[in-house]
Amino acid sequence: MIDFLNKLNPQLIAWRRDFHNYPELGFMEYVTTYKLGKELNRLGFMVHLGEDVMKKEVRLGLPPKEQMDMYEERATDNGVDEYWLSTMQGGMTGIIATWDTGKSGDHMAFRFDIDALPIEETNEKKHFPAQHNFASANKQVMHACGHDGHMTIGLGLASFISSYHAQLSGKFTLIFQPAEEGGRGAKAITENGWLDDVDYFYSGHIGIESLPIGTIAATVDGFLASSKLNINFKGTASHAGMKPELGKNALLAATTAVANLYAIPRHSNGITRINVGKMVAGSGRNIIPDSAYLEVETRGETEDINQYVRSEAMRIVEAAAIMQNVTYEIEAVGQTEEINCSKSLASAIINACNNSSYVKKVIPVAKVAGSEDASFMINRVQASGGKATYMLFGTALDHPHHHQAFDFQEEVLIVAVEALANIVLKGND
Amino acid sequence: MIDFLNKLNPQLIAWRRDFHNYPELGFMEYVTTYKLGKELNRLGFMVHLGEDVMKKEVRLGLPPKEQMDMYEERATDNGVDEYWLSTMQGGMTGIIATWDTGKSGDHMAFRFDIDALPIEETNEKKHFPAQHNFASANKQVMHACGHDGHMTIGLGLASFISSYHAQLSGKFTLIFQPAEEGGRGAKAITENGWLDDVDYFYSGHIGIESLPIGTIAATVDGFLASSKLNINFKGTASHAGMKPELGKNALLAATTAVANLYAIPRHSNGITRINVGKMVAGSGRNIIPDSAYLEVETRGETEDINQYVRSEAMRIVEAAAIMQNVTYEIEAVGQTEEINCSKSLASAIINACNNSSYVKKVIPVAKVAGSEDASFMINRVQASGGKATYMLFGTALDHPHHHQAFDFQEEVLIVAVEALANIVLKGND
Amino acid sequence: MIDFLNKLNPQLIAWRRDFHNYPELGFMEYVTTYKLGKELNRLGFMVHLGEDVMKKEVRLGLPPKEQMDMYEERATDNGVDEYWLSTMQGGMTGIIATWDTGKSGDHMAFRFDIDALPIEETNEKKHFPAQHNFASANKQVMHACGHDGHMTIGLGLASFISSYHAQLSGKFTLIFQPAEEGGRGAKAITENGWLDDVDYFYSGHIGIESLPIGTIAATVDGFLASSKLNINFKGTASHAGMKPELGKNALLAATTAVANLYAIPRHSNGITRINVGKMVAGSGRNIIPDSAYLEVETRGETEDINQYVRSEAMRIVEAAAIMQNVTYEIEAVGQTEEINCSKSLASAIINACNNSSYVKKVIPVAKVAGSEDASFMINRVQASGGKATYMLFGTALDHPHHHQAFDFQEEVLIVAVEALANIVLKGND
Amino acid sequence: MIDFLNKLNPQLIAWRRDFHNYPELGFMEYVTTYKLGKELNRLGFMVHLGEDVMKKEVRLGLPPKEQMDMYEERATDNGVDEYWLSTMQGGMTGIIATWDTGKSGDHMAFRFDIDALPIEETNEKKHFPAQHNFASANKQVMHACGHDGHMTIGLGLASFISSYHAQLSGKFTLIFQPAEEGGRGAKAITENGWLDDVDYFYSGHIGIESLPIGTIAATVDGFLASSKLNINFKGTASHAGMKPELGKNALLAATTAVANLYAIPRHSNGITRINVGKMVAGSGRNIIPDSAYLEVETRGETEDINQYVRSEAMRIVEAAAIMQNVTYEIEAVGQTEEINCSKSLASAIINACNNSSYVKKVIPVAKVAGSEDASFMINRVQASGGKATYMLFGTALDHPHHHQAFDFQEEVLIVAVEALANIVLKGND
Repeated sequence: MIDFLNKLNPQLIAWRRDFHNYPELGFMEYVTTYKLGKELNRLGFMVHLGEDVMKKEVRLGLPPKEQMDMYEERATDNGVDEYWLSTMQGGMTGIIATWDTGKSGDHMAFRFDIDALPIEETNEKKHFPAQHNFASANKQVMHACGHDGHMTIGLGLASFISSYHAQLSGKFTLIFQPAEEGGRGAKAITENGWLDDVDYFYSGHIGIESLPIGTIAATVDGFLASSKLNINFKGTASHAGMKPELGKNALLAATTAVANLYAIPRHSNGITRINVGKMVAGSGRNIIPDSAYLEVETRGETEDINQYVRSEAMRIVEAAAIMQNVTYEIEAVGQTEEINCSKSLASAIINACNNSSYVKKVIPVAKVAGSEDASFMINRVQASGGKATYMLFGTALDHPHHHQAFDFQEEVLIVAVEALANIVLKGND
Repeated sequence: MIDFLNKLNPQLIAWRRDFHNYPELGFMEYVTTYKLGKELNRLGFMVHLGEDVMKKEVRLGLPPKEQMDMYEERATDNGVDEYWLSTMQGGMTGIIATWDTGKSGDHMAFRFDIDALPIEETNEKKHFPAQHNFASANKQVMHACGHDGHMTIGLGLASFISSYHAQLSGKFTLIFQPAEEGGRGAKAITENGWLDDVDYFYSGHIGIESLPIGTIAATVDGFLASSKLNINFKGTASHAGMKPELGKNALLAATTAVANLYAIPRHSNGITRINVGKMVAGSGRNIIPDSAYLEVETRGETEDINQYVRSEAMRIVEAAAIMQNVTYEIEAVGQTEEINCSKSLASAIINACNNSSYVKKVIPVAKVAGSEDASFMINRVQASGGKATYMLFGTALDHPHHHQAFDFQEEVLIVAVEALANIVLKGND
Repeated sequence: MIDFLNKLNPQLIAWRRDFHNYPELGFMEYVTTYKLGKELNRLGFMVHLGEDVMKKEVRLGLPPKEQMDMYEERATDNGVDEYWLSTMQGGMTGIIATWDTGKSGDHMAFRFDIDALPIEETNEKKHFPAQHNFASANKQVMHACGHDGHMTIGLGLASFISSYHAQLSGKFTLIFQPAEEGGRGAKAITENGWLDDVDYFYSGHIGIESLPIGTIAATVDGFLASSKLNINFKGTASHAGMKPELGKNALLAATTAVANLYAIPRHSNGITRINVGKMVAGSGRNIIPDSAYLEVETRGETEDINQYVRSEAMRIVEAAAIMQNVTYEIEAVGQTEEINCSKSLASAIINACNNSSYVKKVIPVAKVAGSEDASFMINRVQASGGKATYMLFGTALDHPHHHQAFDFQEEVLIVAVEALANIVLKGND
Repeated sequence: MIDFLNKLNPQLIAWRRDFHNYPELGFMEYVTTYKLGKELNRLGFMVHLGEDVMKKEVRLGLPPKEQMDMYEERATDNGVDEYWLSTMQGGMTGIIATWDTGKSGDHMAFRFDIDALPIEETNEKKHFPAQHNFASANKQVMHACGHDGHMTIGLGLASFISSYHAQLSGKFTLIFQPAEEGGRGAKAITENGWLDDVDYFYSGHIGIESLPIGTIAATVDGFLASSKLNINFKGTASHAGMKPELGKNALLAATTAVANLYAIPRHSNGITRINVGKMVAGSGRNIIPDSAYLEVETRGETEDINQYVRSEAMRIVEAAAIMQNVTYEIEAVGQTEEINCSKSLASAIINACNNSSYVKKVIPVAKVAGSEDASFMINRVQASGGKATYMLFGTALDHPHHHQAFDFQEEVLIVAVEALANIVLKGND
């Protein structure tokens, strides 16, 4: 296999840089999906698009229509085929690639997420993507969480399956999922039944928990349950100089909510998190602000702990509205569940990766504290009697995930492909 | 004159509704300026545009280039002549119309403001403009401060001068000023010298201080000095679930600033005001917010009191940055001065309006608490030995200025035109 | 009269310093009342004490029983007669002195307030009372609002009436009122009927509005209506390290209330004030605080404006309780009304003070922005057909009222006595 | 041993109720120490008091002198011997009891804490101590953390050693420590050398982590490092109605600090805690508050994490002072360290407790999240080559520690005594 991998490596780097250069936000990965599709077709996979991929109405936190229109227009400008675009229209992005060897065997599924983040990538010279001219071409959007790498690993695995299919048995499903950020897309795919008859499910992430390059974790522990809430306060505008007493200040309701949200007590049973990631309020300088919008995320080590933080947050928002005599609405726009990886996969993966070239070390379990949309898929596979895991692929990082100078060691791509290829080849027990 | 006025009245209403229907934000009144220019040309005025109107570099608080581009494009779509547009390009809006009778006499100048506000006009049925189909055609922009009426009054006065010019002597300057909101445009016009040789200057507003229709105030007392500040906090983004401790939260710096800005103590020497009219912070839900932007306005009954509020605000912003270990920038984007109307104009205006038809009552002085960009013009005229005033034109209001359902009695238009026509006709002493 | 005044002057200074040296908080002026009583008895006045002075149950904002006990104990130690003390027990302090000339004439009443403030007096050398050894002997209590001077002026006026009674006609009532600070005592005296048949009522203050020594104001304009609220939040304690999520944090409810109270919008109809003068919350460092107490004061230029601020405050407190899931109680512990001085007294006082020695100038009306318990007395006298005023007696101040280094020019004492003596002597018309 | 225990049991309950009835705050356990001393003397221990117990100047967070005076006075009233009191005067409470068997063997030391909390005990009928008439006789003080039980266990162990001394070898030191709450007393005892030659050290707590009655934990994991900070803000007082702009508001500085302290980000490396347990600010309702005092506690799973929280807190306090233009002081008044129990003691204790009567189950290690002053002793013993642990003794709780209705099952007393007796009897290996 080492020859195959060595030959594949330059292609991986090329794919990754191309994806990195053209990041798209969740449910608007039109160009990204099209690029993936062309490669997967070429490799001989059967591809599934649009409503085949996910249940339309189960998607959470869709972008505003105008933004989607703008992205779709840009997709056309960037050469996305008209038929493909019409299939994806209105946020039906993502692609699922399947390969049936015709031989009886296990059904293995893999999840790769494909969306980017609303971050303006740095243009500092020492930033590797800037240096090598593949930094984001799209203003205010950036692959700052490594999903450009994840997709690339997916294509790498697809290349392996395509090349080695004669030696393989059973079925393979590669899920290229949109809108992982915010926990918005996985449930809609899951609800379409894609995970119902899966025997083994693999998902993962690069660059978490300081694992060095060459080291991977077979399973993880500690993913947090989470809720994503959008909050709108509505007040009454008034001239701030002439009639301040007639205003009902939605901005002040929001800032009061923020202060109290961050003060939600820690919980003795486990980790909690709270974040207000975005706030937009008011319209003009001399107008008492009559609107305010917040994007909030709660997390808890267990579903119960997350529910505790979430219910505290709900009461705080209500109280903040009363505080300024304004009205409010809370919209639930995303959520993730806890993850309990199937323990037996740890040793299976360790065994499969024995005698690897790029994979130097496999640790059975790593502790993390993020939240993952893959939780819905993992829990569905396990509920149907399958086994599922979330893996980590080590790489040094100069900046944390979601940082405007985030970058990773590109060698992690071939490491991950080797690991997954070995898993496919050597089975799971 | 009553026949002239009665005949003019329907035209006033038509102008007003047309302006109301197409509101434009400050320094982007391209269509508005063009419409004004066509009428003023037709009436025989000499019109002045672009750099003739104001000193480019003195303008404060320009809109972002992309927004200006968008407005200019839309202006073309709306039929604005190409030559006119090129003259106005880059925010050089507004128009000044002059008429020289050729006879020796006073130089009288009048200021009418023409910009709208970033407010989404209500579409409730009982809102008069909605009922009569002239509500704003432009999303998120609205004439919610009566400047549509002010321009109309200006055209009405122009019509009077044009019709009665044979009976008049001296010179007349009608200033149609852009970007009054936020105190951004008057200084740039003043710096071009337009007020330097003016003997009498009149500005004013409709619908302030609960004067009934038919009642006007000849002068005002109490306009507030003000400062307009834009504030930017810059922090550090980080993954809110995995590395919360690595973030430096600019949103929290901003909310802390807001709470303390509103707590700036009142002043025993006179009125103060503080408002945070706008806040935009953060990029994504699960990212520690690394940016926050505030639009702040301070006001004081005197320049000293305003300086007190302003300097408190500056310290608060600095402390808020230290609080969250972020950096900050404060940009001064607008300001207005106190106004002290020339007292002798009160009786002159009362006399001029004797035996009026629409003007039922003139009160010598009214108390207000807003801030006015005209302060720069008034202070320049007075500094050059002229006399200046700010008048009020009464109308009932169901909603305060800057409210999304703001509207006024259209009869105020003819009342104001009659008052100004009488002033033009009967002089000032 | 000048000889009388010159002879009286050293006595005034002695009285003032003695009062200053032993300040007592409202409703606990046991020693102060006793000292006043002995002087008034000596001068031949009939004195009224205890329940004769005020209606017990109408008093607002009584101190805690333990504190009253402690003050009463100390009063005994300081030589207060046992009978007097028993009459005053439980916060029935203050004294009213009456003199009936037996001749028909007007009934004139004067109010002097006698309570001190909970401020620790500075011991800086340059502080005049410290320099001359009459700074407060009582920890955490200080005459920082000049009531030591007011009482002294009252005794000065009593001396004059006593000396000149043969030349006078009508009746005189001198009210030495307890608990002026916080608007707590005047109503209880008023409710006992003392103001019901008063023809002319005089109250006043030293050192307000920058009048120089020798200048007095005959009337004032602008006193604010006010409300005094005590607020208690009750939460649930819990171990802050082991079970933070079980606590309900009353301290956070209070700090959230504070931030929003100070953000209550100004009012376009007139002056507002808000202050949280005191906060006590929590019990121990590692316990989630289960209690919080706030002392709040709202003010408004009119009763309506004060009601606006007060009702905003009430809603904010309720919302703060909901915010932290705690309960709350609001107790109204004091209030003052607007004051509209009887205009005709301005010229009467100016006339009476003609040809004075110490009074150099009388201005008819001054503008102030405090709140005054005397408002209840003034409004009662006016409601009964009498005339009433609130006067100012000028003195330079190095520090504002309620400052720990507050002090005044002692010459103001004789100025004020001369003014009141002239009023008594020359009548009111 | 079972007969000994059964006979001892009623005495344990009597001791506990007596201690519970008379709770005293840290460094003022005069009556408590005296009671302990009399019993320990009676049992034949050598007792050590005052400066023998701890280094005077190492104590942290001493109560104010007036409060100590008051407690000492009350101690006299409650029959504390004059000589004892003079030895303890000024906060030198606590007692150490030693027993030397004369036979060679290990030196075993035990720590029992004796202070109570500033909580007002509930008088609800269903509260067991209220029902049985042993609720706190001291206002605002309560044994709400079970230290009444801890002392009782100490006396029970002393009884055992006294009765069984013939069968024992080596030396025993029983440390009855004052001021555990707030991490204030242990270091001062440690600095006196009491732990320097200890071979085995045992400390512990009742009622933590939901262990049922009869279950004990031999060691714990997870105690948090902590810092205790007292913060004072100093501003400038001013009359809130007349000169609000001259005040510098220390209360607002404090509330701003509180809001931001609670918003200190969680840390990805482990548990954090922050609490503001107490706030006292301002002096009078109509005075801008010129002082504010906060009691703050930071905690972290490791010393590094605690340092992170502590340094965030320091910067926040500084920024809050700048925010309101006031000055500040931060005083470090207590701290605790991490605890890493000696692992080998787990099996030793399990073995020792085999065949117990009251001890039903011993779990080797339990996870907790508090902070413990005993950390200094444990770390000193381990640094000197000894072994040390912190044990838990299970009991059902209806309310959490530090709750005003905290209570425990009294059976835990005999369980704990049996466990410690077995350890003493059967050694540690």
